[in-house]
Amino acid sequence: MQQKSILTLTKDIRFEGYMLVRMSEQRTGSNGTKYLDITFADCTGELNGKLWDGTVDPPSVGSVVKVRGVTQEYNGRLQLRIEKLRPLDDTDKVDMNLLTPSAPENPETMLAELTDTVKALHSAPLRSIVEALVNRYSEKLLYYPGAQRIHHAERSGLLHHTLGMLRLAKAVLPLYPQLNAELLISGVIIHDLCKIEELDSDELGIVKDYTAEGLLLGHISIGVTRIGETAKDLGITGEPVLLLQHMLLSHHGEDMYGSPRKPMFPEAEMLHWLDIVDARMNEIDMALSKVPPGAFSEKVWSLDRRLYQPQYDRLDSE
Amino acid sequence: MQQKSILTLTKDIRFEGYMLVRMSEQRTGSNGTKYLDITFADCTGELNGKLWDGTVDPPSVGSVVKVRGVTQEYNGRLQLRIEKLRPLDDTDKVDMNLLTPSAPENPETMLAELTDTVKALHSAPLRSIVEALVNRYSEKLLYYPGAQRIHHAERSGLLHHTLGMLRLAKAVLPLYPQLNAELLISGVIIHDLCKIEELDSDELGIVKDYTAEGLLLGHISIGVTRIGETAKDLGITGEPVLLLQHMLLSHHGEDMYGSPRKPMFPEAEMLHWLDIVDARMNEIDMALSKVPPGAFSEKVWSLDRRLYQPQYDRLDSE
Amino acid sequence: MQQKSILTLTKDIRFEGYMLVRMSEQRTGSNGTKYLDITFADCTGELNGKLWDGTVDPPSVGSVVKVRGVTQEYNGRLQLRIEKLRPLDDTDKVDMNLLTPSAPENPETMLAELTDTVKALHSAPLRSIVEALVNRYSEKLLYYPGAQRIHHAERSGLLHHTLGMLRLAKAVLPLYPQLNAELLISGVIIHDLCKIEELDSDELGIVKDYTAEGLLLGHISIGVTRIGETAKDLGITGEPVLLLQHMLLSHHGEDMYGSPRKPMFPEAEMLHWLDIVDARMNEIDMALSKVPPGAFSEKVWSLDRRLYQPQYDRLDSE
Amino acid sequence: MQQKSILTLTKDIRFEGYMLVRMSEQRTGSNGTKYLDITFADCTGELNGKLWDGTVDPPSVGSVVKVRGVTQEYNGRLQLRIEKLRPLDDTDKVDMNLLTPSAPENPETMLAELTDTVKALHSAPLRSIVEALVNRYSEKLLYYPGAQRIHHAERSGLLHHTLGMLRLAKAVLPLYPQLNAELLISGVIIHDLCKIEELDSDELGIVKDYTAEGLLLGHISIGVTRIGETAKDLGITGEPVLLLQHMLLSHHGEDMYGSPRKPMFPEAEMLHWLDIVDARMNEIDMALSKVPPGAFSEKVWSLDRRLYQPQYDRLDSE
Amino acid sequence: MQQKSILTLTKDIRFEGYMLVRMSEQRTGSNGTKYLDITFADCTGELNGKLWDGTVDPPSVGSVVKVRGVTQEYNGRLQLRIEKLRPLDDTDKVDMNLLTPSAPENPETMLAELTDTVKALHSAPLRSIVEALVNRYSEKLLYYPGAQRIHHAERSGLLHHTLGMLRLAKAVLPLYPQLNAELLISGVIIHDLCKIEELDSDELGIVKDYTAEGLLLGHISIGVTRIGETAKDLGITGEPVLLLQHMLLSHHGEDMYGSPRKPMFPEAEMLHWLDIVDARMNEIDMALSKVPPGAFSEKVWSLDRRLYQPQYDRLDSE
Amino acid sequence: MQQKSILTLTKDIRFEGYMLVRMSEQRTGSNGTKYLDITFADCTGELNGKLWDGTVDPPSVGSVVKVRGVTQEYNGRLQLRIEKLRPLDDTDKVDMNLLTPSAPENPETMLAELTDTVKALHSAPLRSIVEALVNRYSEKLLYYPGAQRIHHAERSGLLHHTLGMLRLAKAVLPLYPQLNAELLISGVIIHDLCKIEELDSDELGIVKDYTAEGLLLGHISIGVTRIGETAKDLGITGEPVLLLQHMLLSHHGEDMYGSPRKPMFPEAEMLHWLDIVDARMNEIDMALSKVPPGAFSEKVWSLDRRLYQPQYDRLDSE
Repeated sequence: MQQKSILTLTKDIRFEGYMLVRMSEQRTGSNGTKYLDITFADCTGELNGKLWDGTVDPPSVGSVVKVRGVTQEYNGRLQLRIEKLRPLDDTDKVDMNLLTPSAPENPETMLAELTDTVKALHSAPLRSIVEALVNRYSEKLLYYPGAQRIHHAERSGLLHHTLGMLRLAKAVLPLYPQLNAELLISGVIIHDLCKIEELDSDELGIVKDYTAEGLLLGHISIGVTRIGETAKDLGITGEPVLLLQHMLLSHHGEDMYGSPRKPMFPEAEMLHWLDIVDARMNEIDMALSKVPPGAFSEKVWSLDRRLYQPQYDRLDSE
Repeated sequence: MQQKSILTLTKDIRFEGYMLVRMSEQRTGSNGTKYLDITFADCTGELNGKLWDGTVDPPSVGSVVKVRGVTQEYNGRLQLRIEKLRPLDDTDKVDMNLLTPSAPENPETMLAELTDTVKALHSAPLRSIVEALVNRYSEKLLYYPGAQRIHHAERSGLLHHTLGMLRLAKAVLPLYPQLNAELLISGVIIHDLCKIEELDSDELGIVKDYTAEGLLLGHISIGVTRIGETAKDLGITGEPVLLLQHMLLSHHGEDMYGSPRKPMFPEAEMLHWLDIVDARMNEIDMALSKVPPGAFSEKVWSLDRRLYQPQYDRLDSE
Repeated sequence: MQQKSILTLTKDIRFEGYMLVRMSEQRTGSNGTKYLDITFADCTGELNGKLWDGTVDPPSVGSVVKVRGVTQEYNGRLQLRIEKLRPLDDTDKVDMNLLTPSAPENPETMLAELTDTVKALHSAPLRSIVEALVNRYSEKLLYYPGAQRIHHAERSGLLHHTLGMLRLAKAVLPLYPQLNAELLISGVIIHDLCKIEELDSDELGIVKDYTAEGLLLGHISIGVTRIGETAKDLGITGEPVLLLQHMLLSHHGEDMYGSPRKPMFPEAEMLHWLDIVDARMNEIDMALSKVPPGAFSEKVWSLDRRLYQPQYDRLDSE
Repeated sequence: MQQKSILTLTKDIRFEGYMLVRMSEQRTGSNGTKYLDITFADCTGELNGKLWDGTVDPPSVGSVVKVRGVTQEYNGRLQLRIEKLRPLDDTDKVDMNLLTPSAPENPETMLAELTDTVKALHSAPLRSIVEALVNRYSEKLLYYPGAQRIHHAERSGLLHHTLGMLRLAKAVLPLYPQLNAELLISGVIIHDLCKIEELDSDELGIVKDYTAEGLLLGHISIGVTRIGETAKDLGITGEPVLLLQHMLLSHHGEDMYGSPRKPMFPEAEMLHWLDIVDARMNEIDMALSKVPPGAFSEKVWSLDRRLYQPQYDRLDSE
Repeated sequence: MQQKSILTLTKDIRFEGYMLVRMSEQRTGSNGTKYLDITFADCTGELNGKLWDGTVDPPSVGSVVKVRGVTQEYNGRLQLRIEKLRPLDDTDKVDMNLLTPSAPENPETMLAELTDTVKALHSAPLRSIVEALVNRYSEKLLYYPGAQRIHHAERSGLLHHTLGMLRLAKAVLPLYPQLNAELLISGVIIHDLCKIEELDSDELGIVKDYTAEGLLLGHISIGVTRIGETAKDLGITGEPVLLLQHMLLSHHGEDMYGSPRKPMFPEAEMLHWLDIVDARMNEIDMALSKVPPGAFSEKVWSLDRRLYQPQYDRLDSE
Repeated sequence: MQQKSILTLTKDIRFEGYMLVRMSEQRTGSNGTKYLDITFADCTGELNGKLWDGTVDPPSVGSVVKVRGVTQEYNGRLQLRIEKLRPLDDTDKVDMNLLTPSAPENPETMLAELTDTVKALHSAPLRSIVEALVNRYSEKLLYYPGAQRIHHAERSGLLHHTLGMLRLAKAVLPLYPQLNAELLISGVIIHDLCKIEELDSDELGIVKDYTAEGLLLGHISIGVTRIGETAKDLGITGEPVLLLQHMLLSHHGEDMYGSPRKPMFPEAEMLHWLDIVDARMNEIDMALSKVPPGAFSEKVWSLDRRLYQPQYDRLDSE
């Protein structure tokens, strides 16, 4: 029987299943008794739990545990009164997709679509550079998230976002014949690869923090340097290198969003908009996933607005 | 024989052909002699001319004249020393497309594609409202430009821009199944219709100025009101009206660009993006049309940057 | 005997009287006992209370109850230990003005002053439009607040604010003969009427939330549409409609405050300033009401500053 | 016979009368002949003139001359071909009000209204300080303009603006009983007095430039210092001084407009509003003075908008 | 034996020593028992403590007490379970430097360096003004902090900051011969003196709040007035006064940081940068003091960034 | 005899000497005669000249010519009526320092001071990287300007600016012992080196335009890449590379000035400050060079203010 997801839990519910440990500490209550304070997570949300037993060691953060208990309300928030808690053993079969948010497509399939596109590029210099960069990061690309929060913060989210943009680019290209398809596609594929150097993610796609390089340089500056190094290794110079570096440098659109240059040619401008639209659609989708038709979300800080879930069924009946 | 276009003229060239009169005045030189000072235009640019004959009446602004003369340089700028100038008569066959910038597709064909799309909408309330609005403005829609300057400032430019967005919407919709296609398409078609009330354009697509309504209210506020009136006439209330009004209100994205509301549901956000992308691609295309490969444009003020014309041929050879 | 107001309560005070229920929930303490957690309010403030009795049903939010108890301090905040709590019965005589903040004048008298002013307008088109709009909203205008928070957040506050501006307009008009009095007065009366469609208020003037129309369109856009509809119904077109719509559209002064147009004629500019000054005087008055002479308020966020209560008596003695 | 005003001149008009000299220089034409190049002004505008006579000395800037000539158009602008030019002699009777813009009321009468108000103040410390400051500047106050440009840039404009605010204050005070009338009135009277130290104006109210003190310190900082000095001389300390200094410091409302403090008590806030309203009404009045009903002004840079002259007669007829 | 500093305390440590009382209140627990809730401080940080004895009076805020107890963890934060608490008596020898942060140099020595520099000024007017101002504030200058928070928030911090800038000025002057050394040095010494009127600090350098003058006028406006008064008393007028007043007025660089004038001559510009660099170095130093090599601080709000502690030892070995 | 400098020329002066050609074109006058229109320059300014001889070929831009003529005023501006003009021949001895602005110190001496400092660095990785970069650019460093305009726009200006900062760093370091001197000095030396790839300058230090790399990437991004490549070539990795790259990336201080990262450690912050101070002192020096004591400059756009030349002599006498 499949375990209940955290999102669906209410008061006074018995729960048994696997959960990811996000926070875990032994504390002392005001009456002196020791207890475990744990924050669990599955792919639908988080839940705090207490185990009133001073003899149990706190499980390590990032591990998966089997847990049993009853939900109760405390100060208006749901909490799990833990009855039993143990680490995994060999008999446990855990479906990790239930515990951490993951991209909705298979990573290997997505990566194959990406590399097939790379191989089909006709421009030798573009193909060589892009291929080298994808190879450099391909292993981690399988599971890296797109961000720590905000959009595509899920296992394989970086790949998911890149592929979303790639399909969008292919859909849009026939409408703007002035765009060089090879250049745009190359830019799409490499634009965020260096997030893999910027973020410190485990294989579940959970980001602990930024790396030192990520904080001191950022994925955009790292990326420009990596294109330069790669091209130098391959003996490629001039226009292809310069165009790719500019596209990477300008893909956030403005200095206040981390791009020291605005897009200066059509493919760079389009890359910027593909990035925004794919990210926004994902972010709005997430934010509205729990909002019923006719209602508004709380304010979404990253978008600086409340969102509305339209009553689509009324488009026909009224 | 086809006449030379202004863009191609250089010093000491004999010109004969039709031109549009943009400015026309009789002046007195420092030596007391009277002369005509005229600014001509064709679809590629403008050219100043002088006719040193005090007896000729200045042609009216907005008219087309036949003119003959020789180009010369004065203070570093090209000028036409006019030898002969006359109004059109019945024998003249003028191709207006050579004199004013026009959308690259036939207006009737474009309008047909638009109205076919409207007829194919399944949602009765959306279709009724959109149909009524398109009918209201269809005659002027055939020639109205998209703006006074900046992007799609050309005969039938408004239709051209709307259709560009419509095709883009259709290309993008399969990638985002969460979007309601009918709602997005309806929003695209009506989003800028009230520019017809905002701008005062002649049938050549040349905007003399904004209208009083355009300056005091703007096309967004006029549009929201027109949707309201139209729905009231049709007896439609509630969700479809509210959603369309919000999409129109928010399609510029932010208050600083004239939208008092940010897009609050996915179709409104996508509409905003389609609008920007189509406008930007057109604007960049125009700005780069005279820039040779490997060179930069002057600063484009509306984009706050210089643009670069890539050397696409080097993507293969280097 | 009149009940004590919440503002005057201190520690260890016995309270008996009527209070408005703002929040009401049954909770379970850490020791498992159930209790009621209620937030009470009167027109001077709010007070949290606990009833340690698991058998009492929580009263409904928005209702008035009779309550008895003793104040005590908990974590530095005052709290009511509830001894008895019951709903109203027929014998209770509650003065609602003690429970919710209300405008300092009688609503019917204020409305009469407003409608008398409307009737005295000489301009037929202005009078017809303004009269129709006031009639449309007059019932709710009697109790609607001016805002959810900030200024005039009180029963009949919208009417209070409108009347304050109206009197100010009449005081100011003799000094600026270039202003058209009829136009300015008309603008004042209708400028905020559509807050009645924007906010969802009960008859006590307490706003639960914004309406969907309020969030998706805002009272300014709704108002422009309502003027248009009303004028159309009355067969009025042209200048009077356009001027009123612009005044409404521009009365917040700038796009960053929700006005997509800045005021473009003198009456629109004056309307904007009348609105600000009446709102500000009310807001500052509220914020300083609890500050003794010579002291400063905490930072008032909506004004982005601390306020000072002057020692007026020292203006003579020093 | 009254002379023609510059505003009313058109091409080929004979002019004879007095004009103020704004610019005056001897130049050499391309053919080597010397001529006088003069810019004249009256209270309605400016006019350039040429005197083709190398033997005439250029009149001094700021002087009034008698001039005769004929208007002609040169490069689309009106110009005066000067036939005769001479300085004033004893027989000339010049009405300076025709030559420079002046406040519409008599300066002595305005100053009397101001000083009467000061004498009527009951608060001894406020009256003493305000009286001392008005006395200090009263002579120059008779003719100083309110600004170099923008609003009240006219002879006695500073007095005109101050009196406008004073009357406005008296009209508004009955509506806000929480305001201390004496404090507000004192603030109004002294708020801009130190513009007399900031600007370098001649007795016609024409500002040549800012003074060094004006540029390095500004009238606000000078004013705060002058209040301090004056109070010290009078032996007044504490609240009255502090309140007046804060009102002066904060009357521009925000740091970006030169006020390092926002208004922190009600009279300071009201002072700020009175200042803006009176200045804006004057500025809009000026800008619309040449715009016919139903038309728009050019963009007014200081207001960042175009202005509209309403068709007030249509408020009744439509 | 020296007492343990708060920064070094961990769980279950016995503490005995002197501490400063920052907050002190008697509270009632949920079970009705009364207890003391005290926040202690030494120069390394703060620590909350509880004394479970309803009969002990709360010590006064700002006093020093002798305290004994054991640390424990409560809700993840360290707390002191107080066993004994008493006020100081004559036998106690308290080193105040251990209890409050102090500048790293002796105040008297620092003041002497400052006054020696003043005496060495050759310019009579500058020296007289600066000397008078330093004398006016010298007593409080010995202990005043540089700010309530942010930088140099320590006993004698104002003197420390001023001296830091003075030494920096002397180091920098030889490189920019265009700078007038006397003027720059004078500006440095007086630039922040009026913080003594702006802040209300006790002799330990702890700021309770801003003064009324500080909030209503600010140290910059107070300072400009004090220079004016001082110069008037000394009979000095013109350039020296104007230059000093401008330097003080502009030393925050921009209106958004409280300077209504930008620096307009070289010494004013340099003063602004000396102020920033000395403050920043101090602020960064503080923020990094607890960050180990290779790690990042939390976001420092006043600097709007995280800080990094470099691994300096790797500059040689790698 | 030394030739007259352009700055000192007035009307009706005979000039003979060498000048740099900035602009050069053959034009046709309104009467059909051809003439040469040339803009000359020396290190003090520019001067337009006309040669009324249709047979002379225009000299090439950037060349130096010998010219003779007489100054005259035309439309209020000085102009040279050229009598004779010829290219240089072998007998001409031109002191280029008179023709183009140059740094006040000898380039070779300055470069020697720089390289000596590099050699004295103890940190092997820092020294290797800095040495390799200086070597890479040392030839062009001898003459490159610091910018196209604004500050240090002079021959060898980049070296001059770098050396100014280096000396400033050495003066400041003793005051902040927490700073790592080697790191700061390394950052100073390389921070602007890649302006040599960003700007296209001739050997006179005159910048024709930005390079394509300069416009598409900017000297900051190029610099980060060059550090990376250089370190890779040298086999250096980790902390030294990361710190240098961050210092370069952040030396403009904020994203709005082209730095995608704010300085995150003390040396990076100090580098930013040294850069601003040295640039500002140079810029203010230039702007004030023609302003007499007691006067103000016109508005300096890059500084957004007018500047004042103090009357330093009054600091003693008043």
